[in-house]
Amino acid sequence: MRTIWWDNGQVMLIDQRILPLELAVVSYSDYREVAHAITDMVIRGAPAIGAAGGFAMALAAQQSGAANRDALLADLAQAKQVLDAARPTAVNLTWATHRLLDLAQHLVLANLDDIRSALLAEAQRLADQDVEINRRMGANGAAVVPHGANILHHCNTGSLAAVDYGTALGVVRAAWEQGNPVHVWVNETRPRLQGARLTAWELMEAGIPMHLIADNAAGHLMRAGKVDVVIFGADRVAANGDVANKIGSYKLAVLARENGLPCYSVAPASTIDLDTATGDDIPIEERDSQEVTHIDCVQIAPDGVPVYNPAFDVTPHRYITGIVTEEGVCYPPFEVSLRRAKEAAEARIRGS
Amino acid sequence: MRTIWWDNGQVMLIDQRILPLELAVVSYSDYREVAHAITDMVIRGAPAIGAAGGFAMALAAQQSGAANRDALLADLAQAKQVLDAARPTAVNLTWATHRLLDLAQHLVLANLDDIRSALLAEAQRLADQDVEINRRMGANGAAVVPHGANILHHCNTGSLAAVDYGTALGVVRAAWEQGNPVHVWVNETRPRLQGARLTAWELMEAGIPMHLIADNAAGHLMRAGKVDVVIFGADRVAANGDVANKIGSYKLAVLARENGLPCYSVAPASTIDLDTATGDDIPIEERDSQEVTHIDCVQIAPDGVPVYNPAFDVTPHRYITGIVTEEGVCYPPFEVSLRRAKEAAEARIRGS
Repeated sequence: MRTIWWDNGQVMLIDQRILPLELAVVSYSDYREVAHAITDMVIRGAPAIGAAGGFAMALAAQQSGAANRDALLADLAQAKQVLDAARPTAVNLTWATHRLLDLAQHLVLANLDDIRSALLAEAQRLADQDVEINRRMGANGAAVVPHGANILHHCNTGSLAAVDYGTALGVVRAAWEQGNPVHVWVNETRPRLQGARLTAWELMEAGIPMHLIADNAAGHLMRAGKVDVVIFGADRVAANGDVANKIGSYKLAVLARENGLPCYSVAPASTIDLDTATGDDIPIEERDSQEVTHIDCVQIAPDGVPVYNPAFDVTPHRYITGIVTEEGVCYPPFEVSLRRAKEAAEARIRGS
Repeated sequence: MRTIWWDNGQVMLIDQRILPLELAVVSYSDYREVAHAITDMVIRGAPAIGAAGGFAMALAAQQSGAANRDALLADLAQAKQVLDAARPTAVNLTWATHRLLDLAQHLVLANLDDIRSALLAEAQRLADQDVEINRRMGANGAAVVPHGANILHHCNTGSLAAVDYGTALGVVRAAWEQGNPVHVWVNETRPRLQGARLTAWELMEAGIPMHLIADNAAGHLMRAGKVDVVIFGADRVAANGDVANKIGSYKLAVLARENGLPCYSVAPASTIDLDTATGDDIPIEERDSQEVTHIDCVQIAPDGVPVYNPAFDVTPHRYITGIVTEEGVCYPPFEVSLRRAKEAAEARIRGS
């Protein structure tokens, strides 16, 4: 089952807020609802919200009552703006909406319904390519996972974070499928607990050995020699190799280096943003204090407590061993290797 | 109000499991109940469970139906064993039970009730001294807190972790009382959330500016230049200066050094264990998986998920700038400075 798909004029999503206790699907027929679903984290994970952005643009085209091509393009530009604002850090969202808008602008179709169909086909293609890209990243990344490795993993980067298969968890999955008897330490990933709720569930479903830990235990495990490699995803990779990812990733990379362990980020080329020079230029989303003060209905902090809740942090490239992409593993100097990977991936999309 | 006190033949405790939503007091008339309360974390924090151990020994003496001195000493030795097993990492518990048992063994009183009274008086004295010690640590530690510092704090080390005032939070309190306009970043401290539940509450009660953060945000704040000093407590300090403390402390110390920030542990001499050579010799308590999988009634992970839940970690002394004791701030070489502090503190207790 995919995380996101198109069905009869609607975008269908697995509601990731209520897993692992319930597996429910929600449907949207308005692109603004999809934007809202992204903000609310019904769907999350950089590649998954990229796919959501693509389908939402197709929805916007369907919804548009435009009488001519220019009016339709204006509606699509408006939809892109609404969607891009839904989550600022992950670049995949703007990458996907740009890809759809760019296609619409370059299509030489006179019939508006033909444009609408072409956009839907492109959104489908984007989603299908995401799965293929993840499988290629999995194969590339599995090659750097030692035999029987204890892998420390942050957040959720599995099927649920993508259209299917996963990015960092795709690497784990690929290693496991190749017969590598890995074991995963799953960071619960406060505040939203994507590790406890989603990654633990995916690994248990796949039968891959794992233990759930509080985020605070990660350093202790590394120092105790119980971790062989740290692997996490990415929400945006700057041109110099700085990686924005779920809050807490930076700490893992520092601890890995301090303990002589490799640390990989797994990121499709769509997550590489050559227009962002360094991590300092990546906007860091701050989210609602309730994510910290409440867990579902349970209040865990005093009434009215002031909260600071950044959703992401930036890991400077000097702590990153390599960045696994669908075109291979990028190593320093990242300015060179990331540009090559990005260009190869774009050529592949154009050629496919 | 104190965290723990004696009232009419009973040990009274603030129930720390239900704060900040409710402030309730529980009473115990059986030392085994106190041991259970320590295991269940009705009371926690190294100095606080030291005081609880002292009062529980006084309770054990009251409970004992011994007909002679030897039988009473045997009952007390048995009580010490039960109490010491309640939480293995913090050394204050065994330090306190030893202090009471040692007194009983050296008393030259013939009347058993006189021994019982002497033990209760000693438990009271231990608790009173703890407050005095915390105030002295506060004064010593406040001197190393820069003016207007942003202090990063882990777990709870406040009044609730001691008899009153606090250790690391006592330093914060002392700095604030001296007019230093500090601000505290409060790590929520998963899995048991002592930061969110207890430290946030104490700081808000005291009117000291603070923000609550997910533990994962600590590194991001340090890298962003928003932290000036890291301060946490200790559950046991080895002779070489290695510090066992709440899980997640090690990570903070590594991140502090990486970002050029000082990192202090605040520990009364009772927490310094010269009989433990290095941190490798400190037992690390592992606790129930439910602490990670559930928050109160809310399940946050799949049924049957395997969990690893160490309650403490060890920070090697090379990451520790200084250890604040009631006898002054100990600096490297810690073998020398800690021994001096320990000896000075013991001389003070004997002399008082």
